[in-house]
Amino acid sequence: MEILVAKHAGFCFGVKRAINMAEDCAKEAEGRIYTLGPIIHNPQVVKELEKSGISAIKALDDIENGTVIIRSHGVTSDEMRIVQDKGVKVVDATCPFVKKTHEYVELLTREGYSVIVVGDKDHPEVRGILSYGGKDIMAVASVEDLKDMPRKKRIGIVAQTTQSIENLQTVVAHCLKKASELKIFNTICNATSVRQQESIELAKQVDCMIVIGGRNSANTNRLTEICRKIQPKTYHIEVPEELEKLNLNGAQKVGITAGASTPSWLIEKTIDCLREKKANKLEDKRRM
Amino acid sequence: MEILVAKHAGFCFGVKRAINMAEDCAKEAEGRIYTLGPIIHNPQVVKELEKSGISAIKALDDIENGTVIIRSHGVTSDEMRIVQDKGVKVVDATCPFVKKTHEYVELLTREGYSVIVVGDKDHPEVRGILSYGGKDIMAVASVEDLKDMPRKKRIGIVAQTTQSIENLQTVVAHCLKKASELKIFNTICNATSVRQQESIELAKQVDCMIVIGGRNSANTNRLTEICRKIQPKTYHIEVPEELEKLNLNGAQKVGITAGASTPSWLIEKTIDCLREKKANKLEDKRRM
Repeated sequence: MEILVAKHAGFCFGVKRAINMAEDCAKEAEGRIYTLGPIIHNPQVVKELEKSGISAIKALDDIENGTVIIRSHGVTSDEMRIVQDKGVKVVDATCPFVKKTHEYVELLTREGYSVIVVGDKDHPEVRGILSYGGKDIMAVASVEDLKDMPRKKRIGIVAQTTQSIENLQTVVAHCLKKASELKIFNTICNATSVRQQESIELAKQVDCMIVIGGRNSANTNRLTEICRKIQPKTYHIEVPEELEKLNLNGAQKVGITAGASTPSWLIEKTIDCLREKKANKLEDKRRM
Repeated sequence: MEILVAKHAGFCFGVKRAINMAEDCAKEAEGRIYTLGPIIHNPQVVKELEKSGISAIKALDDIENGTVIIRSHGVTSDEMRIVQDKGVKVVDATCPFVKKTHEYVELLTREGYSVIVVGDKDHPEVRGILSYGGKDIMAVASVEDLKDMPRKKRIGIVAQTTQSIENLQTVVAHCLKKASELKIFNTICNATSVRQQESIELAKQVDCMIVIGGRNSANTNRLTEICRKIQPKTYHIEVPEELEKLNLNGAQKVGITAGASTPSWLIEKTIDCLREKKANKLEDKRRM
């Protein structure tokens, strides 16, 4: 069995930066350290950070003192204000690309555009982005969400950083028929496009694809979806232990990719397990 | 034979306006009256106007005095300045939608965008539009023209008023990968989209389509192209006399549409000829 790993699998710049900031915080900060929601969408990493004293909380009410780390997805403008008003120390680990999207939404709103955010309205990143707009802002997961939209004068468009370019293109094509002026900031993170493109190329070459990442990670789920279109034998796993349940019989070439919030140690452990599995198989064969 | 005529076949608002202005001019103006190039792309109309003393000239040098009518497609900013400097009377019949496109190009250039004009670079309308930009402006007939374009910081896009929305959508989709900021003015004239859409619907219902309009009319040529994709038996004629050469045998339903520069009298004459042809046929049958 040959194992091929996508070059840009795993942590993106924003996630790496957030984790570094959290680790620095754990070393230096006095008092309790919180993140509002998991710092990244990877349960294994969050568990590791818990050991360093960083706890993910659900509500701002749970914070009294100490340090609050704003996670890579960012928070809403209201949440940011509340946390700042609390007088606790704030470490802003919002991905700079997400922060840029907040600024674009503020600009488009100021310039009078009806704003569309291409993304999942329930995703924390999108909730944050939406909060920087005015009354005339909406999130659309796909072009289907726009079928009842009336004609607008001017439409401004941004995207969740982990969206696929194809989805953005389809929404823009539709909006061209719905307004005579469009202003678009393609805020899809380059790392996402590169990862998606590499994974597509890899999926074409292998008999089976394994996508590693949190089940709560939108970009990992999207990566799985994209790979499955090319290679139906695509499996999404969170931890290497799940390999046991997969049917990899007959696979000559296995491709591995991982979401932006998957740490390299989880990727490496998966590769090791796959190699071990292969070795066990040889062992089994010898025994027979 | 049933004859179905597209509701919005023929003169658009801008062409109608230009012809009215030219006719008023012929009544009122003293001295010679010129248009720089044919006032609209329809040789029959231009010939009619010649009878009223309006001559289409090729170069500005040919003008010494009298009145110059700027045609519906507009002219370049240089040509406009030269004609104004000549001290002759200028009647600006540029289509207001084309004029708006000039303003958008000026705005995009001022705002620092690399400007793309979706259209045929040799068409007088596009030549005019291009002249209102700076150094960083180009015309693209289709996405193929962009395959070697390097990445840009910000791209501004407008379209020749008679372009198809599909072509604009394809160019925009490509540009989304080439710049992180796009500003688009969809300057495709609504009359064009309506005419194209109606003609497509008509082409689906008939055994044969006849598209009437000048052979030098870009929008008529595009209309023919679009209809032919639906109904291969699509014929482009300029004058009703050409009907003689067409093979309409066996056609139960004939569809008629016409470009934006085709006068209603040419459409009506074509319908009359078709009816006559049908009558002659019945006559022939009776004789046999």
